Amino acid sequence: MHALLLIAHGSRRKASNDEVRKLSEKISKNNKGEFDMLECSFLELAEPLIPDAIDLLINKGAKKITIFPYFLAVGLHVAEDIPEEINKAKKSYPNVIFNTLPHLGVIEEMPNLILSQFHKN
Amino acid sequence: MHALLLIAHGSRRKASNDEVRKLSEKISKNNKGEFDMLECSFLELAEPLIPDAIDLLINKGAKKITIFPYFLAVGLHVAEDIPEEINKAKKSYPNVIFNTLPHLGVIEEMPNLILSQFHKN
Repeated sequence: MHALLLIAHGSRRKASNDEVRKLSEKISKNNKGEFDMLECSFLELAEPLIPDAIDLLINKGAKKITIFPYFLAVGLHVAEDIPEEINKAKKSYPNVIFNTLPHLGVIEEMPNLILSQFHKN
Repeated sequence: MHALLLIAHGSRRKASNDEVRKLSEKISKNNKGEFDMLECSFLELAEPLIPDAIDLLINKGAKKITIFPYFLAVGLHVAEDIPEEINKAKKSYPNVIFNTLPHLGVIEEMPNLILSQFHKN
């Protein structure tokens, strides 16, 4: 069972966290069997926090968890805080495979994605 | 002359601001004549600030400026701070057309963009 774990920063504003939750729902809807389950999680300020989301996925049977950092810049959160959380999870669950994808801001499609918004204009 | 103005939050970390600048360069490289000029700008903490980038574009001949808020969540920055800056610019330059696109986090391609990263995994 392969899980996708979306990690966002988390905000004091409920509306911002709800945007992430809605995005997760859309990803789930568009999933054509590439993954078996998805959770979104937050580094801080919103629920579920990363360890709780990981526990949930593993309790549901995840054997491999692919992490997508929903962050625009590499910063300390992407460079240190998220890896630290994932390393803790690896120790707790040595039989589960964890794999972290590049963060949103650096993915190669981003420039053309922005250009395509401009085209719509 | 049609300009694209990318607006990011700005960070105390130079590397984070440089990521935005690199993204702007990539957008410019991928531009196939859809816009005539591009600047990136920052709401705070980094240069150029929004009004300075707008002055620069207009001095270079921009008659229409399309703004792309490079933000994940709607928050106060997207809902209030950026519109406030743009309204000021509209008053200073009544003959220039300003048009603000939806912020990054809500664009419709986002769920599939994230799914496509998962496919690569």
